[in-house]
Order: sequence, then C-alpha cells, then structure tokens
Amino acid sequence: MLFLESIGIEDVFTVSGGGSIFLDDALGQSKIKYYCCHHEQAVAMASEAYARVNGEIGVSLVTSGPGGTNAITGVAGCWIDSVPNLIISGQVYLNQTIGDSGLRQLGVQEINIIDIVDPITKYAVMVKKANKIKYHLQKAVHIAKTGRPGPVWVDIPADIQRADINENELEEFTPNENPTSLDSNLKSKVTKIAQLLKSSKRPLIHVGQGVKISKATKEFLAFVKSYDLPFVTARNANDIVATNHELYVGRPGTFGQRGANFAVQNSDFYLAIGTRLALSQTGYFSRDYARNAKKVMVDIDQTELDKKTLSIDIKVQSDAKVFLMELNQELSGVSLDISSWIRQCQHWKEKYPVMIPEHKRHKSPVNSYYFVDILSEILTSKDVIVTDMGIAFQGTHQAFKIKEGQKLFTNSGFAAMGWGLPASIGACVANQNKRTICISGDGGLQLNIQELATIMHNKLPIKLFVLNNGGYLTIKQTQEHGFGGQLMGCNQATGLSFPDVLKLAEAYKIRSIRLDNQENLKHKLKQVVDSKGPVVCEIIMDPDQKQIPKVLNRKKPDGTMEASPVEDMYPYLAPEELKENMLSD
Amino acid sequence: MLFLESIGIEDVFTVSGGGSIFLDDALGQSKIKYYCCHHEQAVAMASEAYARVNGEIGVSLVTSGPGGTNAITGVAGCWIDSVPNLIISGQVYLNQTIGDSGLRQLGVQEINIIDIVDPITKYAVMVKKANKIKYHLQKAVHIAKTGRPGPVWVDIPADIQRADINENELEEFTPNENPTSLDSNLKSKVTKIAQLLKSSKRPLIHVGQGVKISKATKEFLAFVKSYDLPFVTARNANDIVATNHELYVGRPGTFGQRGANFAVQNSDFYLAIGTRLALSQTGYFSRDYARNAKKVMVDIDQTELDKKTLSIDIKVQSDAKVFLMELNQELSGVSLDISSWIRQCQHWKEKYPVMIPEHKRHKSPVNSYYFVDILSEILTSKDVIVTDMGIAFQGTHQAFKIKEGQKLFTNSGFAAMGWGLPASIGACVANQNKRTICISGDGGLQLNIQELATIMHNKLPIKLFVLNNGGYLTIKQTQEHGFGGQLMGCNQATGLSFPDVLKLAEAYKIRSIRLDNQENLKHKLKQVVDSKGPVVCEIIMDPDQKQIPKVLNRKKPDGTMEASPVEDMYPYLAPEELKENMLSD
Repeated sequence: MLFLESIGIEDVFTVSGGGSIFLDDALGQSKIKYYCCHHEQAVAMASEAYARVNGEIGVSLVTSGPGGTNAITGVAGCWIDSVPNLIISGQVYLNQTIGDSGLRQLGVQEINIIDIVDPITKYAVMVKKANKIKYHLQKAVHIAKTGRPGPVWVDIPADIQRADINENELEEFTPNENPTSLDSNLKSKVTKIAQLLKSSKRPLIHVGQGVKISKATKEFLAFVKSYDLPFVTARNANDIVATNHELYVGRPGTFGQRGANFAVQNSDFYLAIGTRLALSQTGYFSRDYARNAKKVMVDIDQTELDKKTLSIDIKVQSDAKVFLMELNQELSGVSLDISSWIRQCQHWKEKYPVMIPEHKRHKSPVNSYYFVDILSEILTSKDVIVTDMGIAFQGTHQAFKIKEGQKLFTNSGFAAMGWGLPASIGACVANQNKRTICISGDGGLQLNIQELATIMHNKLPIKLFVLNNGGYLTIKQTQEHGFGGQLMGCNQATGLSFPDVLKLAEAYKIRSIRLDNQENLKHKLKQVVDSKGPVVCEIIMDPDQKQIPKVLNRKKPDGTMEASPVEDMYPYLAPEELKENMLSD
Repeated sequence: MLFLESIGIEDVFTVSGGGSIFLDDALGQSKIKYYCCHHEQAVAMASEAYARVNGEIGVSLVTSGPGGTNAITGVAGCWIDSVPNLIISGQVYLNQTIGDSGLRQLGVQEINIIDIVDPITKYAVMVKKANKIKYHLQKAVHIAKTGRPGPVWVDIPADIQRADINENELEEFTPNENPTSLDSNLKSKVTKIAQLLKSSKRPLIHVGQGVKISKATKEFLAFVKSYDLPFVTARNANDIVATNHELYVGRPGTFGQRGANFAVQNSDFYLAIGTRLALSQTGYFSRDYARNAKKVMVDIDQTELDKKTLSIDIKVQSDAKVFLMELNQELSGVSLDISSWIRQCQHWKEKYPVMIPEHKRHKSPVNSYYFVDILSEILTSKDVIVTDMGIAFQGTHQAFKIKEGQKLFTNSGFAAMGWGLPASIGACVANQNKRTICISGDGGLQLNIQELATIMHNKLPIKLFVLNNGGYLTIKQTQEHGFGGQLMGCNQATGLSFPDVLKLAEAYKIRSIRLDNQENLKHKLKQVVDSKGPVVCEIIMDPDQKQIPKVLNRKKPDGTMEASPVEDMYPYLAPEELKENMLSD
C-alpha cells in the first residue's frame, strides 16, 4: 500500500475477503481511503469511473477466486473504452496455486485469474517474488496509462502479501523512454492533411476520447477556433465542449443526432482524432460513412486504423496532442473560407434537435428526452453525470445539453447493463464527494442494485434517476422491429418483473420520490438535485416511448433487410427533405 | 433450440439481450420453459443448481459481451465443483468479430469470450459454420457430462443464430466409445486395497461427489452396509445419507465435525472415493491428514490423485461406480471384525455434536447452529436446501441433520458470495417448483439480491433465511484471530452497511418475517416453511457468535503460526481429552 500512497492514490474501491486479507489489513492501516462496495463488479466499475473523472488511474482491490472473476465485466469495459484501471487481487499461497499441474483448484477459493483476464488486460501478472512487488506495480501503472490506456492486473499470493520487505531491496521498473510507436511519416502526412483541409469546402473534425487521454482538450478547442472548423464528438468525448459552442455540430451515430449525421455525410474532408469509429458511430453500413469525404483518421492504436469496417484515406498513428501540434504548425496563418458550411452545420443542429415539441406536449407520463432536456438545464458546470445503458445511455447522450466543465460519460463500448450505479459511486468519490447524477433504466438498475448500500453507508450525494419503462426497453423495441412484435424476456408479460423502486430506496434508507407527469417538471427536478445527500427519483415513462432518432435496418424491395446510411434516420424524413439535406451527393 | 428440446432440456435460465436476440426468439417459440434472471451471474448459478438437483445438465443462455463475462463466476464454480453446465452465448456477426486482428472490439458489445473462459471450461468454441451447430452442441453436452464433469461454452454469432438450416444437413458428433481413461492396473490395485481393508482394524471410507456423479449412491450405501464400514462424507456429498445412519460418522474438515475428524485421524485404513480432498477438508497441514492410515484415493481425475498436498499410498484413477463394483467383487463374502471401531466412531459422533447445549441456552438473539438444528428437524425428505457462503455454508453443513432423500448443497470449491439465492432458484425449478430452502448471510445476500425479482415473478416457493450478523462474519473472525482485532471492510464500523431485509422483501413483494429470539423457534420456523409461496425470514444472530468448531492456525512456542492437525479443533479440548481420543498415535 505504501507504493500506492507514493504514487498519489487517495482512494481505493474494494470488497474485503479471505484471499486478500493481508492486503485488506494494509489498506486499512494506510492513509488511503477505501470504499467497500457490495460486489466486485461494482468495485471495478467504480474505479473505472473514478479514473474517468480524475484523469489518472483507478485502483480496485479484490480477493482471490470469485473476487477476481466478479470484477471481469468491469475490466472488459475498461479494456474496450481505454480506461486505466489497476486491479490488485489476492491469491492463495504460492505453494497452493495450481501452476501447470492441470488441477482445477488447489488452494481454497483459488482460480488462475491471470490466465482468464490475460486477453482483456494490457498487463496481467502474478507476483512470485516479494522483492518484485514494486516492479510489477510500477510497470502495471505505467502500462495502464501510456499508449492506448487500459486495465492491468496484479495478482498477489498470500506469502507475498505478508512478506516482510525491505523498501531498499525492492526492484524497480524503469520505463522505456519512448514507448509509444508513432507514425514515422507523421510530418509528410500532416502536410498532406493540411493541403486537403485547405482545399476543403466542407471540412468536419470528429473528436474522441483520445483527446481527453492525451490531455489535449484545450489545445483541440483552440485549434478548431483558430480555423473556424466545425466539429462533432464521439460518445466518450461528448462532454469536452459546451453543446452550444458555435462550431459544435453535435453527436453523430446510430443513436446520434440527425444534424451531426448530415454533417458527416456531407463533409468533403473528414478528420477523426482519437475516436475508434465504432460501428455504433458509423452505422453497420460503415464503408458508406462520410462517403463524400477524404477521410483522415488519427489514432494511437494501429489496429483501429487498419480495421476492415473502415475505408480511410490517410491513417496516422499518433497521440492526439502530438498530431494537433503538428497540424497547427503546418496550418499556421491559414484562413479557410467555409462560412456557409459553418452556417449549414448550425442550421442542421438547430433544425433537427433530439428534443422535439411533441416530447413535451403530453402531460403524463414523463418523456425521457424531455426529462433529460430539463435536467440538463438545471445542472451546473460542476456536475458529473453518468448513465446506465439502453435509453438511459443513448437518450441522455442524444438529448443532454452539456455546459462547459461538466462531465457526462458512460462505458460505451462494452455497455454492461448495471454499470451506471457503481460508476456514479466512483465518479462521486473522484468528484470530492460532490453532487453526482446517475440516470438508469429500471432494468439495468437491478444488476448492481446492491450498491445502494455503498451509497447509503458513505452518504454519497448521488441523485439517482430511474427511468421506469417496465423492463428492457431497447431489447423490446429491437424485438418489435425485427421479430414482428414477438417478445421474449423484456417485460412483465414475457418473464420479467421489477421491484417497487421507492420501497427499494427505503430499504437502503435513501430518500426517494416518484415523478409521473411533466407538470412543473423543472421545479420538481430542481428540488431533487438541490436536496442534500443521496436521493432516488423514479421517473415514470411510457413503456412504449420510441427511441428516436436512430438508424435502423430498412427492408429492401426484395424483402431482405439492409443497414441504412447514417443520414437516413428513423423517423424517416420525406425523401425530398432527405435529398435536400444531402448537398454533396 | 430444437437440439435442446431433442436432448430433453425442459428449462433454460437466461437474460435476454441484443447479442442473442435470434436465440432469445427461438427460445421464446420453443417448448422449453425459460426463466429470466436479472443478472447473468445468477443465470449460471441457477443452472448449476438445476444440474445438481436433476443430475443431468443445466443450460444458460446469455447475450454477447457483458452477458458472457457476467456469467464467468458461475462457470468457474461449475469448473471447480465438477458440475455440467452448458453456456450458450450470443455473439456479433462473424464479420464483426475481432478474430486475430489485435483489436479490442469490433462488433457492438463484442468480447472474445472464448479466449477468456477457455481456462475454466472443458470445451469452449465459437460456432463458425451453421451446419456445425448441432455437432458443437452435442460435443459440448457430451464433454460436460462425461469423465470429470464441468462447464462447456458454445458462442454463437448472429449469422449462425439466424441461419436457415436444413436439419438433415447438420453434421453430428459421434462420441468416442471409451472416453474415460481408467487405471490399467485397476484389478491388481483393488486386490491390494481389499487386502489392506481386510487386515484393517480401523477402516474409514470418505465418500465424495464422485459417487453422485457416477450415479452410484445406492451401490455405495449397499457396499458400506455389506461390510459394516464406517464412513464420512465430503462437502459435496453430505446429503447422500441420512445423518442418523448407523455407519455414518459425519463430516470431516476444517469447518467440519470433531468426531469425523477423530475418525479420520485414528483410521488405519482410509479410502477416499470421489472426493478431491481439498485443503478445506484436509486442513492446511494436509500431509498429516489421516496420518495413521494406509491411504487410498479413487478419483476420475489423475491430477487430483497426484497433487502435492497429499501423500496417498494407492492411487486409483477410476469412476466411483466401476471401482465399487470391482472392490465389492474382490471382497465378496468377507466379514470384518471391527465392531469396537464402529462403536468408537458412533461414540465420537454422539459425544461431539456441533449443536451443543450452550447454543440453545440464551433466549435472544438466535444462535445460527440452533436455528439450523431446528430447521433440519422440521424439514421433510422432499426438501432441497441450498446455502450461501460463510457461516450459512459452514454452519449449515456442520449442523444440519439430513433426512434420507433430502438434498443439501453449496458450491464448496469456488464458494462465491451471493451464490445461494440464484442457486435456490435453479434448485426450485429442478425440484418441480416445490418448496426449496435457502440459507444466506446478510453480507452474501447482497451480491445477487436482484434475484428476489426472479423469485417474485415466477412465484417460486423459496423460503429464504437471512442470517443477519451485521456484515461479513467469517472475514471479521479471521481478522480478529490473525490481525489482533484490527478490522477492515467487514461491518458497519469498518465500511459496510446493509439494508433493511424486511423492507427489501417488501420492495420485491415477498412476504417477510423477522425472528430475533429462540422462544418457540421450532413453531415459528414451521410456520415459515409451511406457508405458501416465497418468504424471506430474517434471523437476527449475534454478530460475535463464534464459528465453532473449526481448525485454526496455532501459535508455536517461537511465536510463528502453524496449521493444526484436523483433530485439534477450536475450541480446544483439554490436552488429556485430545490425547484420549487419539487411540492411534
């Protein structure tokens, strides 16, 4: 634990256990604050969110056996979304580990966790010598945070946990000075990119989490401002800019914003920086994505640049900040004549809002887009907002109006149901125990419902909004769309019932309120978010509320289904209107 | 799903999801009943318990990505405890899988689940061709159930899920006729074993789950009766015999019964059949275990026979039934003269019960051993009892008096906290939706608390007893014993609070009752177990109640700690009494 203190770790998330008992004891005696979750899945997710808020690294401490396997879903989420997270697990005594014996288990609650997590971690190691403990922890933390970040795992057998160590005899890790392989043709590529940009009439920048990771948000915003470049954000970067920024066009994607998708599809120069362009962004007809543009992609991970779903004209393997500096230098002094394109982008942004008047029109129940819209109005620039999955994820990222300084995030790649609640715990702790907002559906909430106990114990001022739509809304709508309405396992009629949310909150001694209509919604929500301590607020929504807009598969004339291009979102525009918006085709 | 129907699968446990949507639809339209859990961890655990009750195989259906990783803890439990469980997971379309690209993810909610679960499954495969689907499912089921059973995993990409298949063109799997490698010297070893047994004065048989797996319980009981052989049971076989059986000595182990440990340590011939002799059975001073005996171990898994924690004189790799038949034939007609040893064993069994008068003496709160004792009196031979971990596991397996026909089990090797509740769901379904008992601590309950919703929806007549001891009792006691009372993360004072159990039950619309004293306990418990439908019964116990008896580490004169031999259980007997009981030393 001394090592963790020495690298500035202030908070650790944990569930105590027999297999980590010496580590637990050391943590208990250290200066580090520890937060006991009620499931190791929540431990890994809380520390992920913690890392996302504080911009450094999260630390999870779990016990042997199930302690480790329980954390895997959280770790996979960090792996895919590039979040540095150090998992320390207890292990049985070295002479009780199975090693290569072929046994299924030798020690009590033993599992060969390193073999299991190896495919989804950047570094995973069992420490076998006491004097190597510092080395492995240093190496793990270094690897987690450099290059494309991700989770790392250090498994510590009981004899190593309890070993008397002499600080001075510990081996240290010395990082390679130049760990990130960069594109050797960076300069020439940047020159070419600058030329393309200069001759472009409709340039668009798509910025992703890579800009956050390289701590280049300021530089990025200065860059687009310098050259008046319209830009859109990827899901893990929706919060890098105030939604009302005059150059910001919005959030493209299958569950994105129509205006942003038009911008992508009409651009003649498209530059993606630090976004992996997942299928949920490009749509399944991904080679059509930005079809009218020369496409440039900048990413630290060469495999992302090379992936078969994309057709990129210029691929640059680079850190976002390094690239931006180079490009800025190359462009220096240039002024682009694209004011009509900027106006067009802003026109799209205004003309096709996610929050449309019909969402507000009815009195009850609550429309989730209207709820998100109003909530985003009353929150302040200091708030941190996390969401669970389904409509809580997509709907919030579609409709939420970010204020400068706010943080809004979700694990978007792995998107494990139940992620929101534990993530709000980690976010709140990283946010100095200040107000933190969590938006979850009633379905996803159940997967980590036990974490209400962690909120209760630590009196974390989390305002948990539960969108009650009677089950798994996204799955239900997929079944309605694709299976002729034949439903299975998505609501009460098909096998799922849910508890009374207010009574649940009461069981966990958390104040609660139910909102089932839109009257005075702003005032009521303000009361919720301004009240002290934890609150659970159930939002009763229509279980048949449509998730719109979104990109769907469309039936072709021959009856088969086909992925739509991203500009063609449901609810479908009239063909003329769609055509009118496709200036470039 | 047709394949599952064709092999007689009647029930599947699942959480629906986008990645398994075609499988979900097929399941919804099949004759198979499906039970929607609220977390995939519970799915795997419910289907494990289902397999344990029905003696065949459990089936889990989960979605891609987190659906798979969520199930891992349950799968690891099946791996270690040798339970056949078929996990079917949805996967993204084949052309969206990462393959060997080095990507972290390509498809939406994709994860390379097969790589992850490979170390803890007997067979794990992604189906890449539609006409191979039957082959892989047949092979998986065959492998899961033969040899040493275990979990298997079949990952099915969306294109395979939705493929039109012609039943007649499907490839089939033909099992190798002789899959289980057996000891080629079986006969000669059995002859030797029979000789040892015949010349033994204090023989003891230790029977484990292998006897259940080979469906040889009847044969085993007939065998011990034929030769009047005292026997003890391993944790996964505690329920194969009524506790009052005249040859049954009890349950040895670190959290075992003192009399059974005396029998082991005094035996001069010790024959273990179908138990892997885990450290929790032998104690950490494992080479001392059965130190006065010629030791024979029969197991299907050679690696268990060879493991370094044991020193076995004769190792036999064999199916339990095959071995019993051979030994029976070899012994045929023999009569052993060991009546005084039998009496001695019964004397130990009676003299050192787990349920001692002091547990009953005080009025309140409830002593958990007394609770288990009374509960076991009122349950009938048709009941299925499962437990969660900690004192709910150890205390129940120590104190419960089995009636013939009852089933009592826990995942003993992996022992994941939270296993009990979902296991009771699977057990109840396999038990034809008849009365099923679950005993859990308040700490472990939280890890799968969402499954109360599954019980609620399906109106399963599960009687859930929650031993409220204010946190993680076992961990607390380990810390008290080994860390000078320095506690961390085990109760409210050290970071953990728990919800109100009755209000929780109310939120899930389940009737509930709290019992906080021992007056009329039998009558009150009878009311609980005899009431219809699901019930939650909170048992208030002393958070400082000791878990006794147990084998502890003892301090040596030089101050270091040392594992005790299993006969030397805490609370320690007077040296003379201990010595008196060690006839063989």
